[in-house]
Amino acid sequence: MAKDLNEFKAYREKMNKIIVESGNLDLKRFFALDSAVYREGALDPKTKELLGLVASTVLRCDDCIIYHIDRCIEEGMTAEEFQEVMGIALVVGGSIAIPHVRTAFEMFETIRAR
Amino acid sequence: MAKDLNEFKAYREKMNKIIVESGNLDLKRFFALDSAVYREGALDPKTKELLGLVASTVLRCDDCIIYHIDRCIEEGMTAEEFQEVMGIALVVGGSIAIPHVRTAFEMFETIRAR
Amino acid sequence: MAKDLNEFKAYREKMNKIIVESGNLDLKRFFALDSAVYREGALDPKTKELLGLVASTVLRCDDCIIYHIDRCIEEGMTAEEFQEVMGIALVVGGSIAIPHVRTAFEMFETIRAR
Amino acid sequence: MAKDLNEFKAYREKMNKIIVESGNLDLKRFFALDSAVYREGALDPKTKELLGLVASTVLRCDDCIIYHIDRCIEEGMTAEEFQEVMGIALVVGGSIAIPHVRTAFEMFETIRAR
Amino acid sequence: MAKDLNEFKAYREKMNKIIVESGNLDLKRFFALDSAVYREGALDPKTKELLGLVASTVLRCDDCIIYHIDRCIEEGMTAEEFQEVMGIALVVGGSIAIPHVRTAFEMFETIRAR
Amino acid sequence: MAKDLNEFKAYREKMNKIIVESGNLDLKRFFALDSAVYREGALDPKTKELLGLVASTVLRCDDCIIYHIDRCIEEGMTAEEFQEVMGIALVVGGSIAIPHVRTAFEMFETIRAR
Repeated sequence: MAKDLNEFKAYREKMNKIIVESGNLDLKRFFALDSAVYREGALDPKTKELLGLVASTVLRCDDCIIYHIDRCIEEGMTAEEFQEVMGIALVVGGSIAIPHVRTAFEMFETIRAR
Repeated sequence: MAKDLNEFKAYREKMNKIIVESGNLDLKRFFALDSAVYREGALDPKTKELLGLVASTVLRCDDCIIYHIDRCIEEGMTAEEFQEVMGIALVVGGSIAIPHVRTAFEMFETIRAR
Repeated sequence: MAKDLNEFKAYREKMNKIIVESGNLDLKRFFALDSAVYREGALDPKTKELLGLVASTVLRCDDCIIYHIDRCIEEGMTAEEFQEVMGIALVVGGSIAIPHVRTAFEMFETIRAR
Repeated sequence: MAKDLNEFKAYREKMNKIIVESGNLDLKRFFALDSAVYREGALDPKTKELLGLVASTVLRCDDCIIYHIDRCIEEGMTAEEFQEVMGIALVVGGSIAIPHVRTAFEMFETIRAR
Repeated sequence: MAKDLNEFKAYREKMNKIIVESGNLDLKRFFALDSAVYREGALDPKTKELLGLVASTVLRCDDCIIYHIDRCIEEGMTAEEFQEVMGIALVVGGSIAIPHVRTAFEMFETIRAR
Repeated sequence: MAKDLNEFKAYREKMNKIIVESGNLDLKRFFALDSAVYREGALDPKTKELLGLVASTVLRCDDCIIYHIDRCIEEGMTAEEFQEVMGIALVVGGSIAIPHVRTAFEMFETIRAR
């Protein structure tokens, strides 16, 4: 029932390019900043991606969840770690986040099976 | 335009099972608690389901709305009662909730017509 | 630590009057509608106030919580009923609602002790 | 990937009619008020529609965004103005609004190309 | 009942300086961007501040509302224009925004009386 | 301008006790679960507290931010780590989170100075 991953990635890529190349500098700067905050620093990229995942889940944004799960898996997140992030997100964000936890579990399996 | 009800129910069932049986006890406990709070107590199940419906609508969660409308109808919610819950949800949550009120009205008719 | 109830009521009254009498008809109509949806209809006023209370709690609005607890108590809400509404609000809205549940419990005791 | 515009408009029209004609006066009044606040007043309709667009974007409501972009274009919003509204929405609402900014850019092009 | 305006401004100034000078470049860049999006462009500063005000109100952020009302008044917003922005915010955001509309009206009078 | 830390802790303690001992089992279970998800597991307590902090900041809950900053410092969070968490929270949650980032910076200094 969740989105097709490849179709979603292609759409995101295409639209982000249109936004960033629209000529509006502030939009371009925002997207640059959105990449910068997840780069290696005092915290390693894996921890930062887990932070992005939990924030996306409590704010209930499916597209953001899919993006960060993909990145978290690249950074080595295990199934147990994923479940614990979801546990915190559910308790903090409440049952209203359950549909997004469903998306997250489905995407976690889909991406790991690639 | 809204989701197919049977497909949605099958997906929800399947994913909830995966989450609850993942081995993470906290996730299992959260789902148990999510059932417990709607059980008969000082308040009857119908009132509790109306509370779940209004909370889902102001928080703008279509999947949650569909679930609670289904349960509210099982508990005997009439069309007039449904409309009054939606009236409160709209005034409290604002026009931003209108797309979800549309889902609710469509689902109310769909479920009652079964 | 919560607000002084009488001071809060006086402030709310004073400011609502200023808003409603500002000369903007749409503001006046919104406030009229905000009263209308809680009036006796297919659902009784007590149930409607419980709906207002749960919606205010999951949306995390202390001022709205205080208003609806006051009205719920006028309509005869018991301690057990209050706790069950809070249970649903906590599970739906998550731990992020806990500070507002604390306000609600404090206000419930304060208003009942008057 | 975004919704089909004509299908969406037909669905919205149909469901709004059902809601407004349900017999519940408060629902009808809310919809009337939702039209009234965007009418010419001290502020012109274009400015009001821009306000509706930015509010819809920070509240992350795709259906509301599509509606207001359509109206903004009718009122003469240019590409540069649209991008500046999106810039404010992104900074105020954060990266969690990005998926909705993608919808907005796609719909802006779609509607202008009609 | 609302915050003391001068005390609030001094606190905001002091804390923003601490954040921007903390040594973290991304925080500094975000604050720079937060100023940039309200500067004159295709839209004039007054319209942009009205956009900031409506976004702050529907997102229910008192501190942000106070900041933007101050700026809107500097840009020449009249009482009628202010009321119309509040009307849109109330209809879009719902009664849950009423406490913040009260803050806005009080601050509007306070700042205009300086 | 932020809350007095000791007063806040005493209030939180007192009210949590009242809620947990109210006799409603579901409320008690929710609070137990709210402790459980932050305990050592596949992820260490420090990472889990960082997750709690970023979630509290994007959801804009001052009381939750204060609680998690206190715990994060106990778990050894450095100033640089704290700033990076705030950077992610600001970019994800937007400028609407700035007032809460101000609270966080003030509390970070206050708690570290004890």
